[in-house]
Amino acid sequence: MSTTPMNNNILTQADINYLDALWRASNYLCAGMIYLKDNPLLKAPLAPGHLKARLLGHWGSSPGQTFIWTHLNRIIKAHDLNMIYLSGPGHGAPAVLAQTWLEGSYTDVYPDKSRDASGMAALFRAFSFPGQLGSHCTPEVPGSIHEGGELGYCLSHAFGAAFDNPDLIVAAVVGDGEAETGPLATAWHSNKFLNPVRDGAVLPILHLNGYKIANPTVLARISQEELEQLFRGYGWEPCFVEGDAPTTMHREMAQALEQCITRIRQAQTQARASGVVHRPRWPMIVLRTPKGWTGPKNWDGHAIEGSWRSHQVPLADVHNNPGQLAALEDWMRSYAPEALFDNDGHPVPDVLALIPEGDRRMGANLHANGGRLRKPLKLPGFQDYAVPFKGHAQSRVSPTGALGPFLRDIMVANPDNFRLFSPDENASNRLQAAYEASPKTWLADTLPQDADGGFLAPDGRVMEMLSEHTLEGWLEGYLLTGRHGLFNTYESFVHIVDSMVNQHAKWLDKSRQEARWRAPVSSLNILVSSLVWRQDHNGFTHQDPGFLDVVCNKSAEVARIYLPPDANCLLSVADHCLRSTDYVNVIVADKQPHLVYLDMPEAAAHCAKGAGIWPWASTDADDEPDVVMACAGDIITQEALAAAALLRQHLPDLKLRFVNVVDLFRLQSASAHPHGLNDPDFDALFTRDKPVIFAFHGYPWLIHRLVYRRTNHAGFHVRGYREKGNINTPLELAIQNGIDRYSLAIDAIDHVPRLQNTGAHFKEYLKEQRIAAVAHAHEYGTDTTDIANWTWPEAAH
Amino acid sequence: MSTTPMNNNILTQADINYLDALWRASNYLCAGMIYLKDNPLLKAPLAPGHLKARLLGHWGSSPGQTFIWTHLNRIIKAHDLNMIYLSGPGHGAPAVLAQTWLEGSYTDVYPDKSRDASGMAALFRAFSFPGQLGSHCTPEVPGSIHEGGELGYCLSHAFGAAFDNPDLIVAAVVGDGEAETGPLATAWHSNKFLNPVRDGAVLPILHLNGYKIANPTVLARISQEELEQLFRGYGWEPCFVEGDAPTTMHREMAQALEQCITRIRQAQTQARASGVVHRPRWPMIVLRTPKGWTGPKNWDGHAIEGSWRSHQVPLADVHNNPGQLAALEDWMRSYAPEALFDNDGHPVPDVLALIPEGDRRMGANLHANGGRLRKPLKLPGFQDYAVPFKGHAQSRVSPTGALGPFLRDIMVANPDNFRLFSPDENASNRLQAAYEASPKTWLADTLPQDADGGFLAPDGRVMEMLSEHTLEGWLEGYLLTGRHGLFNTYESFVHIVDSMVNQHAKWLDKSRQEARWRAPVSSLNILVSSLVWRQDHNGFTHQDPGFLDVVCNKSAEVARIYLPPDANCLLSVADHCLRSTDYVNVIVADKQPHLVYLDMPEAAAHCAKGAGIWPWASTDADDEPDVVMACAGDIITQEALAAAALLRQHLPDLKLRFVNVVDLFRLQSASAHPHGLNDPDFDALFTRDKPVIFAFHGYPWLIHRLVYRRTNHAGFHVRGYREKGNINTPLELAIQNGIDRYSLAIDAIDHVPRLQNTGAHFKEYLKEQRIAAVAHAHEYGTDTTDIANWTWPEAAH
Repeated sequence: MSTTPMNNNILTQADINYLDALWRASNYLCAGMIYLKDNPLLKAPLAPGHLKARLLGHWGSSPGQTFIWTHLNRIIKAHDLNMIYLSGPGHGAPAVLAQTWLEGSYTDVYPDKSRDASGMAALFRAFSFPGQLGSHCTPEVPGSIHEGGELGYCLSHAFGAAFDNPDLIVAAVVGDGEAETGPLATAWHSNKFLNPVRDGAVLPILHLNGYKIANPTVLARISQEELEQLFRGYGWEPCFVEGDAPTTMHREMAQALEQCITRIRQAQTQARASGVVHRPRWPMIVLRTPKGWTGPKNWDGHAIEGSWRSHQVPLADVHNNPGQLAALEDWMRSYAPEALFDNDGHPVPDVLALIPEGDRRMGANLHANGGRLRKPLKLPGFQDYAVPFKGHAQSRVSPTGALGPFLRDIMVANPDNFRLFSPDENASNRLQAAYEASPKTWLADTLPQDADGGFLAPDGRVMEMLSEHTLEGWLEGYLLTGRHGLFNTYESFVHIVDSMVNQHAKWLDKSRQEARWRAPVSSLNILVSSLVWRQDHNGFTHQDPGFLDVVCNKSAEVARIYLPPDANCLLSVADHCLRSTDYVNVIVADKQPHLVYLDMPEAAAHCAKGAGIWPWASTDADDEPDVVMACAGDIITQEALAAAALLRQHLPDLKLRFVNVVDLFRLQSASAHPHGLNDPDFDALFTRDKPVIFAFHGYPWLIHRLVYRRTNHAGFHVRGYREKGNINTPLELAIQNGIDRYSLAIDAIDHVPRLQNTGAHFKEYLKEQRIAAVAHAHEYGTDTTDIANWTWPEAAH
Repeated sequence: MSTTPMNNNILTQADINYLDALWRASNYLCAGMIYLKDNPLLKAPLAPGHLKARLLGHWGSSPGQTFIWTHLNRIIKAHDLNMIYLSGPGHGAPAVLAQTWLEGSYTDVYPDKSRDASGMAALFRAFSFPGQLGSHCTPEVPGSIHEGGELGYCLSHAFGAAFDNPDLIVAAVVGDGEAETGPLATAWHSNKFLNPVRDGAVLPILHLNGYKIANPTVLARISQEELEQLFRGYGWEPCFVEGDAPTTMHREMAQALEQCITRIRQAQTQARASGVVHRPRWPMIVLRTPKGWTGPKNWDGHAIEGSWRSHQVPLADVHNNPGQLAALEDWMRSYAPEALFDNDGHPVPDVLALIPEGDRRMGANLHANGGRLRKPLKLPGFQDYAVPFKGHAQSRVSPTGALGPFLRDIMVANPDNFRLFSPDENASNRLQAAYEASPKTWLADTLPQDADGGFLAPDGRVMEMLSEHTLEGWLEGYLLTGRHGLFNTYESFVHIVDSMVNQHAKWLDKSRQEARWRAPVSSLNILVSSLVWRQDHNGFTHQDPGFLDVVCNKSAEVARIYLPPDANCLLSVADHCLRSTDYVNVIVADKQPHLVYLDMPEAAAHCAKGAGIWPWASTDADDEPDVVMACAGDIITQEALAAAALLRQHLPDLKLRFVNVVDLFRLQSASAHPHGLNDPDFDALFTRDKPVIFAFHGYPWLIHRLVYRRTNHAGFHVRGYREKGNINTPLELAIQNGIDRYSLAIDAIDHVPRLQNTGAHFKEYLKEQRIAAVAHAHEYGTDTTDIANWTWPEAAH
């Protein structure tokens, strides 16, 4: 398939005329968007007054993308395909805006951009104009589920969209700049995780236009032999379409697409009919065209077409240079707009001839507005998964271990629209119960020994690959096409996808605010586990709870953070998050056995409140306390509780209030976050002036950042991870960072004025205990049994 | 080369004996580190009392890595090679600790781990023990420049080490788990950026041991044909060594290494002799061995060797299960320790026979303690690059554009140990002056048209590829081997390398504190440009100043953040950062023309102070002010200054102090950061009780996080990026986030009690101006000329 057979009879001359008309029309529109604010049909000679004051936009990849979309239209119509389009190259919006406007899907959503001269002028003016259309395929663009503002995720998004959508073909246009990024480079391997029976197909089209902003691309500058080997090595069957002569290129592209679609359908039919599932060698297209194809050839002795100089605005001095203005006019008239649009600006029938009908138009395909297809998740009652309760803080259960069966049964109840994603860590994170419902998707080779606990199968629906980027991208694509899922990963390494989560949060924020025609999609649920406080054995590289700081910078409309203190609370929080839409939900929960603090009714009530007093651990008896011991985080809560127990035991007169926070944004002002407590409620919980010793799971400064407007902010003394760690025991790691029971109790003594004298002796005792704990760790490599098995001294209450 | 020719005569039988002895000895040590606290030589029958209480460590990749190191020793010695070793697979420390202990380089650094029985016992006990040795190749491990705690960066680090080190060969062991990550998947393309004349060589050894934590690896489960095509497509010549029979494997590995070294030397000699530089097809090795090779074959009917079950501790129940204890003893005795160590625990001569001498030992190679080789950078006087000064805030210059010539001349003065790194954005970020000193490294194919402004050359030393991960990894490897550099990237997308920067900061922190034998290396200098406030045209995806929040979580010993307000300040800050060692320096500076606030002497003095009053913009005349207008960030400073001008003009009686902050950590308490101002100095600058309107470049909450302990914290009213943006004009974007001149002036009025009445009229005027500015932007797509060209009304002062 790498050399296209010369069966050039697929297209009639009429087809070629239609293809070329649509392509020229959209190229004309792309140029118009960059340059024109008036005279959209060039009925008058082009004059400076028709030009926008500020020329913005990217021409470079536009003509290649309009060419692809044009040909996809033909093949959709020829085979009645269900297809969506992902625009990978940066600043790809002009091509998609042009094509959706021509097919009418744009006007369906934005009637003011009517499919006539006035709508065309409005589109031109709106492009890259303040408050209006961006240069990326933003949420406001019909047909888009991939903005492409940050490069690298086109292929992983495409695969996510294809999973569990057996009829869908996802055309993924990969820019050759984007192809240099790490996330994209490994996403080619996603073909080992796509099942030809149950999933749809991804058709990658590597757009080798040769240049990035300022440089040639690597893949455009290796030999054809290496290029072909690379993609064959990745498991693809590359089909090369190369050239710049339109008619020849139309024939070759049509031929290539026919071959690809035939091959996709063959692979699917064969697998679906036989039930024998193996990994096909899926087809892909390498489309090599000049950057800025059909644009100005050169200017002032410098090549523009076929050069990085066509990346943005190819002729940038049109306001001042009459020669450039004339060149621009020549360029735009080269498309013969008068033959493409009638006198009123309506596209002529030839332009529209190959455009599919209704929802087959890629700008109107419902998969690209996935909320419209979304079915609510069928959730078993989370209460049914409650872990045994033996009294407050009297027994230990792995929180994520308790979540596993709930996720398992969700997988059973939703066999075609829920998946679990993790970088080789579902079992490490104790979610292996999910394998009882579904094995791990695997279409690479297998060995007989895999039968022994490998849990691998082509029709598995637990997704594991050692690439956080790929998993996050798969899940985003899956959610944006209307399904549900959960990503879990080691806390420290979730930073690897900081930027992806940022971008998804931005997408959701804009969708909610500025593309109300998009129906809500399921939230991006991220479970971070293998937490900093139990990475004492893996050491310093595995200790970083700073993802929360990144998420807190995102829009309050979108960002949600939960720190369930125990297994029952985690179940309640997970249930809440899995029902929700349009949020980024971050859940922080460890995998090791930890104390169960609350029975299920208490847990559900506590999580619903988001923050509350635990009376059984408090000694203030609804009175104004001397000190508030507050905490957020499962492991941290144990230390805070142990500190409270020490204080209660040694200073029986102390009035201590114990507060636990699940929903982190409860701390923020109600004016800053919809989950924020109002000031009276906050003051009622944390007092207006008493010391608050706050033990926090993450970096301590985050709490200050959230509560700085509160009345009692000066009273907050926050402890958390201070970037101190090594190979430690759990308690030693806590001590190094000041969140251990002894240090917290000392903090309380230090901040309650009346204990300055009476507490002095006790404080010395605590310091000695702290030294002894470290000494024991360094002597034996473990914490003492009474520390490791500590439970709340309930009887003494 | 893909099928190894069967010339098996390279090794004598003695060689094989030596290789096998060294390999067995190091495997024995790896097992001992995981299990034993006593009885290191197994002189007594193994008893539970000899076992560590907590079994930690990773056996899986250890025997493959000891095998590689053993063979590298032979070839180093045979050819007097200058070679270092990068351990890519996670938890690779046992192999490296074992080999460095055997070669004596470990004991050179840690004399308590002597090369005898007592030292061996000490090593065993220290491994994965609280406060002692980690399971990764941490900074404490001699010979390591790559910790491998977070996966993905082995190859990019290796290339960074090889650049400008023509005699060095960097053996990069890539785990097949790590190979699935995005950063690793694209780093194979680094061979298009390595010059055989001027640079050393990277010898990748893909260790295909088949399994990750819990799954097979993708690359181990594709056909040999695909695997070979993949690496040929990446431009490598793969040489396969596969099997598990030790003698055969010794012969094949020795043969493969000979071939690789020969090929490397041929490529280098040819290029160096002829001066004709092209990209060779560099060799690499694919080593396929069983995971947990030579360990227990199976237990309880489940395979261990050759399975993911050997990933960590292969027999984990040895304390309680006498059968497992016996199996462990059998396993350890299978290496015949009595034949490897003498009665005192010294390695016998056969074990030592192939170990190189002195600095040729990979644990002692100076390139892995790069500070020892580091030469201070030759820096021209930054003052010589001062931009013209026409009065405070009277003219505009691109800050990064002014930095370009300074970097250019640094490149000229340091032709072999300074490089500039950027993801295709040096020119976009206005640093293109650097090309005058050196083109961009490029060993992929070229076209005639590249001569027209492409600036590509094999001996270029500006590094550009569209992969932030690869560039960051290259730079880290370059710095850790004793050289200098600067990475620049778009602000929003620096988040892509959040996690890499985290890990590098952790490395530096540990190096400084716990591996004092490491000499300081040059700081990691990150210039973030194309800043949020001038991404009004690229839109919301390009607006994220949150990298600073990530860096602030890192150790105060290491983290440094600078926001130079103008070109002259940027030059001063860059000079400071380029001289420094062992820091992560983040410099925030935009590329668009911005106001020049200070002449060079003022700039140097201001940057040295890190934060100070600008008297020429203040009206408090050393008196106690009514309000402090503070700012940090170049673009932001203009708006704060414009606000100050508006206030001065309309409220001439107002006493306003104008403060600019360059060194962000000046804000933090002196007890929290070495750059922190002490409280009296802070109070003198910001007052103890007056309102401070603080206009900040980044997310506003970061300032609260830094100043929450300050006396006047309640008086701080911070404005910054609030995650509001779209396609805007600069001023409209500022207005949306409340950091524009009008909003800042309104803030000042709102917080000065005596202006509540007198300022009311002016406040209405400001609101009107704000509305008018947005209306103008939406009408014309630009800000008004007076806004875009605004300068400080100096004459009126």
